[in-house]
Amino acid sequence: MKMMKAARLHKVGEPMRIENLPVPEPASNDVLVRVRACGIVPNLGNILTNWQTWFPELPLPPLPAIFGLDPAGEIVAVGSHVHTWSPGDRVYVNPGRYCGGCRACRNGDLVHCALYTFNGYFGFSPDSWKIYQNYPYGGLCEYMTAPQYALVKLPDNVTFEQGARFGYLGTMYSALRKSRVAPGKTLLVNGISGTLGIGGALFGLAMGANRIFGTGRNQELLDKVKALSPGRIEVLSIEGDETIDKWVKRRTGGLGVDVFVDALGPGAKHETMLQGVRALKRGGRAVNIGAIAGPVGLDLHTMMDEGQGIEGSIWFNAGEGQDMADMAAAGTVDLSIFEHVSHPLDEVNDAISGIAIRNGGFSNFVITP
Amino acid sequence: MKMMKAARLHKVGEPMRIENLPVPEPASNDVLVRVRACGIVPNLGNILTNWQTWFPELPLPPLPAIFGLDPAGEIVAVGSHVHTWSPGDRVYVNPGRYCGGCRACRNGDLVHCALYTFNGYFGFSPDSWKIYQNYPYGGLCEYMTAPQYALVKLPDNVTFEQGARFGYLGTMYSALRKSRVAPGKTLLVNGISGTLGIGGALFGLAMGANRIFGTGRNQELLDKVKALSPGRIEVLSIEGDETIDKWVKRRTGGLGVDVFVDALGPGAKHETMLQGVRALKRGGRAVNIGAIAGPVGLDLHTMMDEGQGIEGSIWFNAGEGQDMADMAAAGTVDLSIFEHVSHPLDEVNDAISGIAIRNGGFSNFVITP
Amino acid sequence: MKMMKAARLHKVGEPMRIENLPVPEPASNDVLVRVRACGIVPNLGNILTNWQTWFPELPLPPLPAIFGLDPAGEIVAVGSHVHTWSPGDRVYVNPGRYCGGCRACRNGDLVHCALYTFNGYFGFSPDSWKIYQNYPYGGLCEYMTAPQYALVKLPDNVTFEQGARFGYLGTMYSALRKSRVAPGKTLLVNGISGTLGIGGALFGLAMGANRIFGTGRNQELLDKVKALSPGRIEVLSIEGDETIDKWVKRRTGGLGVDVFVDALGPGAKHETMLQGVRALKRGGRAVNIGAIAGPVGLDLHTMMDEGQGIEGSIWFNAGEGQDMADMAAAGTVDLSIFEHVSHPLDEVNDAISGIAIRNGGFSNFVITP
Amino acid sequence: MKMMKAARLHKVGEPMRIENLPVPEPASNDVLVRVRACGIVPNLGNILTNWQTWFPELPLPPLPAIFGLDPAGEIVAVGSHVHTWSPGDRVYVNPGRYCGGCRACRNGDLVHCALYTFNGYFGFSPDSWKIYQNYPYGGLCEYMTAPQYALVKLPDNVTFEQGARFGYLGTMYSALRKSRVAPGKTLLVNGISGTLGIGGALFGLAMGANRIFGTGRNQELLDKVKALSPGRIEVLSIEGDETIDKWVKRRTGGLGVDVFVDALGPGAKHETMLQGVRALKRGGRAVNIGAIAGPVGLDLHTMMDEGQGIEGSIWFNAGEGQDMADMAAAGTVDLSIFEHVSHPLDEVNDAISGIAIRNGGFSNFVITP
Repeated sequence: MKMMKAARLHKVGEPMRIENLPVPEPASNDVLVRVRACGIVPNLGNILTNWQTWFPELPLPPLPAIFGLDPAGEIVAVGSHVHTWSPGDRVYVNPGRYCGGCRACRNGDLVHCALYTFNGYFGFSPDSWKIYQNYPYGGLCEYMTAPQYALVKLPDNVTFEQGARFGYLGTMYSALRKSRVAPGKTLLVNGISGTLGIGGALFGLAMGANRIFGTGRNQELLDKVKALSPGRIEVLSIEGDETIDKWVKRRTGGLGVDVFVDALGPGAKHETMLQGVRALKRGGRAVNIGAIAGPVGLDLHTMMDEGQGIEGSIWFNAGEGQDMADMAAAGTVDLSIFEHVSHPLDEVNDAISGIAIRNGGFSNFVITP
Repeated sequence: MKMMKAARLHKVGEPMRIENLPVPEPASNDVLVRVRACGIVPNLGNILTNWQTWFPELPLPPLPAIFGLDPAGEIVAVGSHVHTWSPGDRVYVNPGRYCGGCRACRNGDLVHCALYTFNGYFGFSPDSWKIYQNYPYGGLCEYMTAPQYALVKLPDNVTFEQGARFGYLGTMYSALRKSRVAPGKTLLVNGISGTLGIGGALFGLAMGANRIFGTGRNQELLDKVKALSPGRIEVLSIEGDETIDKWVKRRTGGLGVDVFVDALGPGAKHETMLQGVRALKRGGRAVNIGAIAGPVGLDLHTMMDEGQGIEGSIWFNAGEGQDMADMAAAGTVDLSIFEHVSHPLDEVNDAISGIAIRNGGFSNFVITP
Repeated sequence: MKMMKAARLHKVGEPMRIENLPVPEPASNDVLVRVRACGIVPNLGNILTNWQTWFPELPLPPLPAIFGLDPAGEIVAVGSHVHTWSPGDRVYVNPGRYCGGCRACRNGDLVHCALYTFNGYFGFSPDSWKIYQNYPYGGLCEYMTAPQYALVKLPDNVTFEQGARFGYLGTMYSALRKSRVAPGKTLLVNGISGTLGIGGALFGLAMGANRIFGTGRNQELLDKVKALSPGRIEVLSIEGDETIDKWVKRRTGGLGVDVFVDALGPGAKHETMLQGVRALKRGGRAVNIGAIAGPVGLDLHTMMDEGQGIEGSIWFNAGEGQDMADMAAAGTVDLSIFEHVSHPLDEVNDAISGIAIRNGGFSNFVITP
Repeated sequence: MKMMKAARLHKVGEPMRIENLPVPEPASNDVLVRVRACGIVPNLGNILTNWQTWFPELPLPPLPAIFGLDPAGEIVAVGSHVHTWSPGDRVYVNPGRYCGGCRACRNGDLVHCALYTFNGYFGFSPDSWKIYQNYPYGGLCEYMTAPQYALVKLPDNVTFEQGARFGYLGTMYSALRKSRVAPGKTLLVNGISGTLGIGGALFGLAMGANRIFGTGRNQELLDKVKALSPGRIEVLSIEGDETIDKWVKRRTGGLGVDVFVDALGPGAKHETMLQGVRALKRGGRAVNIGAIAGPVGLDLHTMMDEGQGIEGSIWFNAGEGQDMADMAAAGTVDLSIFEHVSHPLDEVNDAISGIAIRNGGFSNFVITP
């Protein structure tokens, strides 16, 4: 039996342990991937420590477990029902797992699968343990299995470290697609200089948004975001005096924006999001992909009068991931803006705690097993 | 100058006065309509009495004003640019007025016009007075002008009294269209036995919804709604012990509904709406067309995890109104369920106050000028 | 090793042979189904005899092969990755097979899979043999494996024989969905009394189409179709003097229909389809699901001036099949109109040739293995 | 009465005459525009000479008539119902005229108006003469009236001469929108170096298309198109040996393109378009905006097997025009690529005949009245 190195969490609150475990076997619709980089998201520390308290209804993988949300690597073996992928293919592994048989799956509405589960992270259904039985390994190890539907082929000009950043980027891309960002549209992103929000600048530009308004706290990071396209991006620090809605209305002749995406982190003030909603134009759409928690007091009566909606968007499918790979190949998004902070697998616990100090969304923390 | 009888409000809080006023002239894109029936909605009393206090930013027509939201009648003259309509056509007059020149209008996104205004009711923009200059007369008079874009041709089997009911019905129809109610879909309507909500039963059936769940207070009225299609409609009184979400989940194998429409009246409890949102399936859509006021504390984090959204839908365009006329002509909706309470124009003040006592959504109050 | 009875074709042009073969094993995402009925479509004889000559680029399953397009039965075993389905579930098995890994599959655009293949019939890709390696058995046997994504749960009021009719019905349903048939819309179906076209009447009604125009040859069958809803369905025999477009325009005030679906059989005249296209209103949509062959001379210049399109629609996914099952459960479609002609497996060759004499779309030929 | 200079056609086949005519008055929903530039499209000569023979069912404006499809200028007066536009606004006047009252208009489906008519060019309905009664003047004069719904506000960095080019550009933009060109999509444009096709390069890039394949005859012009974005645009001369479909399939790993737009001129070979259709991927969309005439023999059976469609797209609405103005303002399209050939009104006949000699789509012929 072939063995490999893996990081495993045995108990909530403890550090992960580096262990030797058997290399898994791919089932009929799966591939085996040699992981070369696995992204660490800022929220991982929270998931490992606080998740079960915060969201007891959303299960972690059964412990001991190999976590790791955003793996990239090479295919080394394929199952009997895999015809599109071959050993040697360089891939990002989308961690979203579908059951394949529920009504949403049978309709192709993949992320709305009744058993939707993040491999190596947490599940969205009390029954997610069934999925974890099939896919027990996240990306913090040398070899993992993955269903073929989860793969994104990486072009030659995308490194594994860049590929390991696709998760939060894809979350933003899917949100922008759902809200039909395109030429002629204006976009507001709350938290634009963060790990999640910065995709709003990158993909907003690539999708042709006319003007992009971004808010955050750190003026230096905001200026760096604006520098990505000074003629199309405008930024505002929420530490200043002007509210987001007044700023946006002032800059749009009183109209407001077509699309607002909230990408704020956990603990952000509700008022910041509410100002974003108030910055919408009549008929505008808000999308929530951030971590704002608790009951958010929306003025639904005014939103009705104004024909406005707010939608929660969760992650993205691998087809959308392939779009992102295409954009990188075509040069319509520039992934070279990321500063990679790479650690070997042995330093996984340091990397998870070290991410607290980062250069906003420009930093990219990865483990290279 | 030809004169006519009209009801006018001179001062908020006073009764309307019956007066003689000149018959208006249609502009180039307008028609002149001889009003035969004008619907009275339950909310009209509030609009006349409390609107300026409740929503000071949403203007009433300048006083003295002819109110009247839902007119139906015959065309008697047409403007120079009207080629599709002729004197003698029987029509419902959609009160929604568009400016015709803003970006939304030029895109055909009509109800999201920046100057959107309800003729004979109130406006959605501080600049709505500009629209009232062009269309000063609501339906509580003998003759009114209306833009050709606002007309719905009534088939022979729809009476003027039934046509005067199209307003709130159309609001529901448009909400169901936006949320893609169709065969294979399940629908929940809060307030299904009310003036607004009953359209959820009528159009939900006509659009092929598989199952319709409806809630309300009055069991007798709920039973009457269920009788419209006992095999496809289920009803629950919110006076009972079971929450809406538990009831719906229990009846759908734990899944929840595809679509939830909230059609509750002013003063309804937020909790009733929140239970509706919690009754959604993963990936489900909520639409708000009711009058719930104040900040509604939505659990946006869970809605994001579940890929759910809530949208405010406002009124409907005349094309959608024409669909409704078609449904009546084809017999896929049965407008004979309505019990008409008709008053002549002289009794307009009695009718407005009398609507407080009605047989839920089955009653239809109209003025026949 | 468990054995079963199966019908196999060993050579094109020969009859099928009844043989004993091993019961197959389900792979990780598959189920094993005990087939109780398998639909025979009128075109099967052609597929078995002429396909390789007519469409040499579209492969048959490698011979000897078990054909059988439309199986219905009970699940008797499930693979390791199947969590939504259980032994005992009554199902229709959609024969459309996806690769699961191509871009279309990863986007949830399932029928546009690059390797799309009809199990037990023929494939749409030169590489379909890869799919046949995974799914070698069609429905003309006692036991077959099927991927969980292909299953449609049958409600109690749908018999296996009715379920075995879902194939051509679903093809029509998907065409109507793509063309947005709904209340307020008018529909024209060429070949409405045939096996494929009759679904246009059933689902057009269930989806709320305002008026349905249907054409065919046999006046008696057409009258039987009209009787399904005399107020909403109108029929025309193409043996008569009036062209389809003139008839439709005459009956729609000169406007034409919103949607035209062509469901004609092989060998039908191009002119019949062209008249259907000419019956479209400005902005209307045509969908082709029939078998018209050869270059069809469309007047694309006029279609451009009129903003019209024609789309080819192929089959349907199992989510759409589940909608159909729901409609049957809710009673919005009535499957009792079908007259079943059932044969045991031993008589499969007789059944295939016998279908030539049928009562139009009202007949349903099935094998009950 | 204020007078102005205008070019009028008195008889088909004669040159236009320069005459003095009264300045028109705007109706209630109209503005009066001082025309500063009016685009001349290559096809104008054909319209003036051959139209009535080629398309007898599509009427010219009643003679004598002021032609002129693509005017740009300044608003000098507004009607009583115009609230969004003011004197001094710099605008492009979209020539598409809607009736405002038909079902398509009432639905906001503007270009599918039953009376759709090109101001100053030709009409799409036998009843277009009703529209010409309301809007008798095209752009080849000093002052014209225009409905407010037809206006596009030009940003400061767009000249009137560039604005006068919006017509054919907008036709392409609308086609790309309908076919959902966006990041991750591949596009093929037949006739990419022509007046109509060049917009496929400009807007395809701005909308984020991953790769753009373009065909034409003139290699020098094709190279100039490719130079707009050498990394994303590939070109092929149809004078060469390789067919379009083989070239595209070879360059896309055998898959084909998502979207094909045909922008060929009158008299182009059907085979060139058919190769474009064959270059589509499974599930791909073709859009026809060119002038190919006569019955085009499409292989609809294969298109059905492949889930492909072809749609005719006609012109664009003013909201789409406003998107284009935004793109120019944001710098995502570069209108400086056009070489303007300007003539005063007196030379209108020379300009119309002179356009035969042009530098492909890079040339822009305008009259500056």
